[in-house]
Amino acid sequence: MTFDVTILGSSSATPIYNRHPSAQVLNVHERFFLLDCGEGTQMQLQRYKIRFSRINHIFISHLHGDHYLGLMGLLSTMHLQGRTSEMHLFGPKELQHITDLQLEYSQTVLRYPLTFHAVNTSVKKIIFEDDSLAVSSIPMNHRIDCCGFLFNEKEGLRKLIPEKLVQYKIPYTLYPDLKRGADYTDETGNTIPNHELTIPPSRARSYAYCSDTLFDETISNYVEGADLLYHESTFSDELLDRAKETFHSTASQAATIAKMAGVKSLLIGHFSARHKDVSPLLAEAKKIFPSTALALEGEKFSISSD
Amino acid sequence: MTFDVTILGSSSATPIYNRHPSAQVLNVHERFFLLDCGEGTQMQLQRYKIRFSRINHIFISHLHGDHYLGLMGLLSTMHLQGRTSEMHLFGPKELQHITDLQLEYSQTVLRYPLTFHAVNTSVKKIIFEDDSLAVSSIPMNHRIDCCGFLFNEKEGLRKLIPEKLVQYKIPYTLYPDLKRGADYTDETGNTIPNHELTIPPSRARSYAYCSDTLFDETISNYVEGADLLYHESTFSDELLDRAKETFHSTASQAATIAKMAGVKSLLIGHFSARHKDVSPLLAEAKKIFPSTALALEGEKFSISSD
Repeated sequence: MTFDVTILGSSSATPIYNRHPSAQVLNVHERFFLLDCGEGTQMQLQRYKIRFSRINHIFISHLHGDHYLGLMGLLSTMHLQGRTSEMHLFGPKELQHITDLQLEYSQTVLRYPLTFHAVNTSVKKIIFEDDSLAVSSIPMNHRIDCCGFLFNEKEGLRKLIPEKLVQYKIPYTLYPDLKRGADYTDETGNTIPNHELTIPPSRARSYAYCSDTLFDETISNYVEGADLLYHESTFSDELLDRAKETFHSTASQAATIAKMAGVKSLLIGHFSARHKDVSPLLAEAKKIFPSTALALEGEKFSISSD
Repeated sequence: MTFDVTILGSSSATPIYNRHPSAQVLNVHERFFLLDCGEGTQMQLQRYKIRFSRINHIFISHLHGDHYLGLMGLLSTMHLQGRTSEMHLFGPKELQHITDLQLEYSQTVLRYPLTFHAVNTSVKKIIFEDDSLAVSSIPMNHRIDCCGFLFNEKEGLRKLIPEKLVQYKIPYTLYPDLKRGADYTDETGNTIPNHELTIPPSRARSYAYCSDTLFDETISNYVEGADLLYHESTFSDELLDRAKETFHSTASQAATIAKMAGVKSLLIGHFSARHKDVSPLLAEAKKIFPSTALALEGEKFSISSD
């Protein structure tokens, strides 16, 4: 089952060197979740051939322009393309005011239902849940209300062992029960325990998206043990003062959070216009947390269930 | 003296085939005027190496997203780049509400004065004027309040004939008067008429930007005799019904306005996503008005004063 994230943009507020502002697409079992939606996201989705119609959930971390100014254009293009299926939009409550106002002034009545879910950015709380996934808000420490998002895959069903099904001549109508852990009792009253008929489900995976934040150790608790952590890394370490001043993090700070949280891998992004070459940031992070990669546009990172 | 327009985008509402939504930069004597500001305009300005600091006036034709969704990102980047000089923003009155709200929710206090000028889109009226230029609103016929903009260069000063200045030993302190048309009287009381000392000023030029509109003959009166007319041409002629339905124009209709108005040249743009290849639109327009060109991204069109 797919679980991967594609980077659409990883520039901080000033887009430069052909870098685009924040946007990522998380593919969980072929359902697509858009994380932030900076200016130009709809063009980036086209560039990387991600069909708009696959996206049914959009999560906006905060209302700095580089994280949401592509939203109205994307919602509008979906409307013009004839979308009819419901779109769920998650973000700070003020976002609804902005979208409503822009729809009103353009006299646009969307052809599809747009359901807004106001997110309390100051608490860790499940904001979306279904059979296979739970998404939680994670409080960030930024100049304005801001949260990250933690995606936790739910444990799937146990996997049937085909040879055993044949050996015990188990009717296929019972397969769903077996997958959920039931034992099998045959016609003679003989019971075969479930663990002889199935193997455990794939490991549940997790992705944590920590958008804009000052270095804050609390965050390591929220993202503990994540398979993949994206943590902003706006500046190199030599610009630590600038990072503090602007409520952003350095590469080493992002790596420190990854290390404290015991995550498997780290992605760094949200690069400042001050860094044309971002390889020094990667080097700084790797010193503290070796399993680090740059969140470069167009790159796709898969999380294995092994 | 420069008078040219650079196309930054000429897609209609759905940006596709790497085309960007509406935005143009008019350079009048090295002062830059931004006409509309679709999503991605700040990236397009960078691509075509137009420095943000040169732009002091932005004109927004109407509040459909493809004409203004790049505005907040551009204003924000100017702020982050440390701009201090005043920016004049012209557009429908509701635009101020949208910009104010987005600045408020991002807790941004711009470092530079942003002066908003509400434009009455239903009348032709001078909305900006200085020594060298007058800009007028031109009513368009669209689904929501919308206007185009007419840029009229003012006639400059007469040009001095160097040989005559030497011949009559005219003190340089009198040059400004001569340029404004004064005769010269020498020490003996002998008067030399101005037309012997100067030649007429360069011809005053004009550019008309007609953004989104239904075919409307009235527009030809507003743009009569313009040197260069940009007129939207969203559809080819075979989609005339679609053009009417959406309050847009076809290529032939744009050309008809150009012909009626007796302009020198026509630019067509705002191409629908239905037209991957826009050369048929050019062919259609040229049949009616031969001096037509496509408003393709990155192209610059100069208006000569000859």
